[in-house]
Parts: sequence; structure tokens; C-alpha cells
Amino acid sequence: MAFKELHKITRADADSLTAFIKESVEKAHAKGAVVGISGGVDSAVVAKLCADALGGENVLCVFMPTAVTPGEDYVQTKAMCKSWNIRYKAISIQSAVDAFSGMLLTGKEAPLEKGNIMARCRMIVLYDKAKKEDYLVIGTTNRSELLMGYMTKFGDGAEDVMPMYNLYKTQVWEMAKVVGVPDEIIEKVPTAGLWEGQTDESEMGITYLDLDKALNVMEQGGSDADMAAAANISEAKAKELRDQVGRMMHKHSPAMIPGQ
Amino acid sequence: MAFKELHKITRADADSLTAFIKESVEKAHAKGAVVGISGGVDSAVVAKLCADALGGENVLCVFMPTAVTPGEDYVQTKAMCKSWNIRYKAISIQSAVDAFSGMLLTGKEAPLEKGNIMARCRMIVLYDKAKKEDYLVIGTTNRSELLMGYMTKFGDGAEDVMPMYNLYKTQVWEMAKVVGVPDEIIEKVPTAGLWEGQTDESEMGITYLDLDKALNVMEQGGSDADMAAAANISEAKAKELRDQVGRMMHKHSPAMIPGQ
Repeated sequence: MAFKELHKITRADADSLTAFIKESVEKAHAKGAVVGISGGVDSAVVAKLCADALGGENVLCVFMPTAVTPGEDYVQTKAMCKSWNIRYKAISIQSAVDAFSGMLLTGKEAPLEKGNIMARCRMIVLYDKAKKEDYLVIGTTNRSELLMGYMTKFGDGAEDVMPMYNLYKTQVWEMAKVVGVPDEIIEKVPTAGLWEGQTDESEMGITYLDLDKALNVMEQGGSDADMAAAANISEAKAKELRDQVGRMMHKHSPAMIPGQ
Repeated sequence: MAFKELHKITRADADSLTAFIKESVEKAHAKGAVVGISGGVDSAVVAKLCADALGGENVLCVFMPTAVTPGEDYVQTKAMCKSWNIRYKAISIQSAVDAFSGMLLTGKEAPLEKGNIMARCRMIVLYDKAKKEDYLVIGTTNRSELLMGYMTKFGDGAEDVMPMYNLYKTQVWEMAKVVGVPDEIIEKVPTAGLWEGQTDESEMGITYLDLDKALNVMEQGGSDADMAAAANISEAKAKELRDQVGRMMHKHSPAMIPGQ
């Protein structure tokens, strides 16, 4: 069985997402877009697409550091937003994270638990800003994260519009080049920023390049063996990925309701 | 055109929701249920249905007061959970609300904005507990609130399972009697508890009794005039309700994605 390779991102793909964002905001009778900006490539791409769609003056990027956020992320995102004429605000969420830590954590939890709290605190800030300005929250989740469940339900996974729903991480990198995201941001090692030294790829035990090849074949109906061949990984790893996708489905499913 | 009156709730309806909750928890391979308990009738009904479905020892009710929460709510919910053999925890969210207020509020906002923050802080607590215990979050939103958008997106509207999806508020009161919720809770004036003296009905400008009659006719395809006749309200009020239902749809819709 032959599988299609991942589509190579072009200017036409960027234009189509720009049109989609514009349409979504108009349909909701909203006045603009709020984007949580982190210093990573995903939020940079979304910010630029929003600025192209709505004009930078109708886009608010909110940078929400904690004590473990590298200072360079602030410097870079601020300069980037300025160069795109995007409104920019930095709001530390540390005091809220501290309040929840005191309330909920004993110190023995996995770092992921604190990470979930951070992601949800950021959601609270973004939705507060969106409400004040009559803006929509435009999410930054990409398809690789979505399938792997690599986001926090009602945290970074909470969004009104999800422009990168169909873009795997490797396609986000291509999109970043197309729309002109600065190289210093494209070249960063992907991290959810939950603790120092964390990287997505070491946590998932696979590179995004291989992951996306495997997921792409899986989504075309490929077997574990097909996934393994496409991504040059073991069949056991392919099965592990498929199982995780199934297990994580609930994160992007609506609540279960009676009579279905 | 003749419209069906609201279905009168019986023991069979309670049994069917109990079975639904049990099935939902089993399907997710979860070990139990977390319910945010407030002292109002909705969360009391859901708590009892969960206890009947899973055994009280597999249900954790979390009471999450702020400085404006009446002390009697604590006394009543604690006694009620004890009588049903349900696990009970009280966790004040005030410190987190204070942190967000300092971060986001100038003091000039509508009380609703602080209410959204409170509801979302409660979501963070419930999902933290659910994660720790491998439980699902069972929501307490009823159909009247759902249609009117009378809840906070990603706040009290955030849930894994939504047992009361098909129950209007007046049917929740009937269900409360069927499952044996204490009278002192059934007879309380409904309030979201966002500020002192707040009541749902004065905020919506209509009683739940009239609202549910109007919504029931609307959902059967009735016109504004049909709604007005059924609920003994003006056609203008009927149109206002219909418009609000349309406007609030986004609160329970998934994020917009490209290509749809």
C-alpha cells in the first residue's frame, strides 16, 4: 500500500489559514484575536497569521511567564510582535501558580501536574483579556500535539479557533519559514516550558520528524508495520504511538452526554 | 400546533442517568467521579446520582468556597455527603482568585468577570483532583443553563461527563425529590454565588418555571408567539430568549477548525 507523503507547506496554505481566521472572527462578530505567545514556533506562526488576517492592531499577544521561563523568550517575543505591529502584554502567572501549588500540591507530584496548573492559569488570563476586548482566543495547538494528547485539557487546549488543526509540527516549521518567523525562534528546541531543560522530543521518545511520518501513515489507514517503515522506528514504538492517540482522544472530545 | 409539555421526572429517569454515569466511568477506565459541590440543587443531584452509580466511596465531592460563600453551604454539603457516604473535601479558592484579581482586575469590571475567574479556578481544582485519583469530572450543568449560556466556558462548563444535558432546571428540582436531596437544598433560591444577593432568576429576568416552558416549546420548533403563549411572557421576551440561545451556542461548541 502506498501512502502520500506530508504535504509541503506553501504561501497558498498560509493564505488559506489567514482567510479562515478572518472568517472565524467575523462569524463570531468579534473584534480581534488574543494569542498566548511563548517564544516557541507554534504561537509565533499563529500570531503572524492573525496579524495578516486582522491587522496587527487587532491582535493582542500575551506573554505569560513563570519563574522558570527563560528571559530571552520575553525579549524575542516582544521584538517580534513589535516588528509585526502586534499589541503585546507580559503578565506573570507566578502568583496564581503559587496559590494553586499551596492549595493542591504536596511537592511529591510529577512536574506534569504543575504544568497542567500553569497551562490552565494561562487560559484564565487569555479568556479574561478576550472578554474585555471582545476578541476570540486563537489556539496554537498543532496536529501532532493534538493526536498525541500533548496539551492540557481546558489549558493550552482551550481555544475558540484552532487554525493549525491540520498542520503537523514539521509543517508548522515550514509554515514559519513561509510567513517569516525569525530564525532564532524556528531553530529553538521545542519545549512545553514546564520545567528547566524539558524538551518535547525527549519526553515523547521520538523526534517530530519521525513522529509526523508515523502519524501521517497512521491517519491514512496504515498498519503498525507501515508506520514503522515510514518513520524508521520499531513496530513496538509504532503500536505505542497508535495506542497513545486512542487513549488521548478524550482530550479533544466533547463531554459524554446521555442518549448517545 | 400542539407542543409536548415537559416530561415529569420519575425514578426510571434517575436509574437511567445512574446507568449512564456508571457506563461513562467504565468506558474511560476511570476509578470514580469528582463533583464540585456548591450547596445548590444541581450539584447535590449529580453527587447523589454518582454515589448511586459508583458507590459513595468512589465519589469525591469538593466544596470550593470564596470569601462570599455562605457558611451554611459548607455545613449543609458536608452533612449531606456524609449521609450518602460520599468522600468530601473543602478547599478555599480565595488565594487563587486574589492572585488573578491582582493580575487582571482594575476594580471597574462587571462582577461577572470575577465570576468567570472563580469558575475557572474551581475547574483547576477539580481537574487536579481528578488527575490524582484517576477519576472523571462529572459536570453539573443543566439544559436551561446550557441553552442560556449561563455558565463559564472552561469553568463550570468544563466537564468530562454531562449527565444533566437533557434536564431543564425545573426537571432537576423534580429529580432532586426523586433521589432524596434534602429539602433545605431543594428550596434554596438558585444562585451562581458570584456575589452576595445574586439570584439566577433576577439576573435572567424570568423565572425558571417560565423559562423552561419557553425553551421547551422553542426546542420543539415553536415560534416566538408559541413560546410567549406557553410561558405567559411577551413575544419580545420570547425573541430575546431565542436570540440569547443562538448567541450562546459557541459556549458548548468545539473550536472552529479549517475546512468545515
